Amino acid sequence: MTRITAQLAFLTEADKLKSTLRATTLCDASRRENSGEHSWHIALYAMVLAEHAVKPVNIARVIQMLLIHDLVEIDAGDCPIHGDHDPAEMARIEQAAANRIFHLLPPDQALAFRALWDEFEAAETDDAIFAKSIDRVQPVIANLETDGGTWPAFNVTAAQLQARVGVKVERGAPAIWNALRHRIDAWFAA
Amino acid sequence: MTRITAQLAFLTEADKLKSTLRATTLCDASRRENSGEHSWHIALYAMVLAEHAVKPVNIARVIQMLLIHDLVEIDAGDCPIHGDHDPAEMARIEQAAANRIFHLLPPDQALAFRALWDEFEAAETDDAIFAKSIDRVQPVIANLETDGGTWPAFNVTAAQLQARVGVKVERGAPAIWNALRHRIDAWFAA
Repeated sequence: MTRITAQLAFLTEADKLKSTLRATTLCDASRRENSGEHSWHIALYAMVLAEHAVKPVNIARVIQMLLIHDLVEIDAGDCPIHGDHDPAEMARIEQAAANRIFHLLPPDQALAFRALWDEFEAAETDDAIFAKSIDRVQPVIANLETDGGTWPAFNVTAAQLQARVGVKVERGAPAIWNALRHRIDAWFAA
Repeated sequence: MTRITAQLAFLTEADKLKSTLRATTLCDASRRENSGEHSWHIALYAMVLAEHAVKPVNIARVIQMLLIHDLVEIDAGDCPIHGDHDPAEMARIEQAAANRIFHLLPPDQALAFRALWDEFEAAETDDAIFAKSIDRVQPVIANLETDGGTWPAFNVTAAQLQARVGVKVERGAPAIWNALRHRIDAWFAA
């Protein structure tokens, strides 16, 4: 197989991410969001909100991280943050998915994409910490736009939202969480 | 309105692009693609295929161009390349959409995003020429994956595909068009 044939096969496989459904809906509540359009939206979030990163980031790397961060869900599906799951089992499935999907690419790109995905998952570098905060905050806004969205169905409390989401957003972009706090407090108080 | 409030309002408005339907379907023909997930897919295309650009490109700029290139469709809708439309009227509508949508952002970002969109539309810089070639080639692959996809409905001939799409892809990334040529020829010959 030629290099370009492998690249195009990877891109056609990636198309399947448009059929992976997330728990969150669109902001007009018309339907559930898929992981492909979610990945576009958060890449745009990062582009617009980069100035609020707690430490300076390389926005090109952050965006590329976000573009590939959910590809493993083609095999593993989306795992709602407020849902019930076994983190170790989920990690095992996602590792297997990363091994399969990134290795559709030519070897040099497979290694580079896998390294970027590993960096995102580890959430230790400034770029990955900011990318994670963006990935976490976008569904919060979708929920706020849809009268709590998935929060009632998952029986989420204000304390759980802070523990599961707020601390992660604050770690990478405290200004964004601060900007949402009054809307979040108002929803949970109502 | 604070700076971050304006940024978040823009990002919530951008959510509507997930409801703009394109003529093209997903690669499994299950449904029509929307412009949000299309934007994600072509940003990933650019990331994977940058080495095939006819001239060296700044991949970070290309990706950001592709992330925002279809936002005007929130107001203007998608205009299928093989469909019937008045280019001057379409350009007028898209200019008005760009004026409205990008100006939801703080002024400095509104100008920067608008300049990037204008550059994409003009297709004169190396980055924009490559971005256009990527935007054009992805639906061709979706059509090839779905037994011609939208080509029969639009009565597209091989010559029309070459004139409307092929020349644009070849201008920015001839190697990609060459890699597809035998599949395209085979489909139109069948």
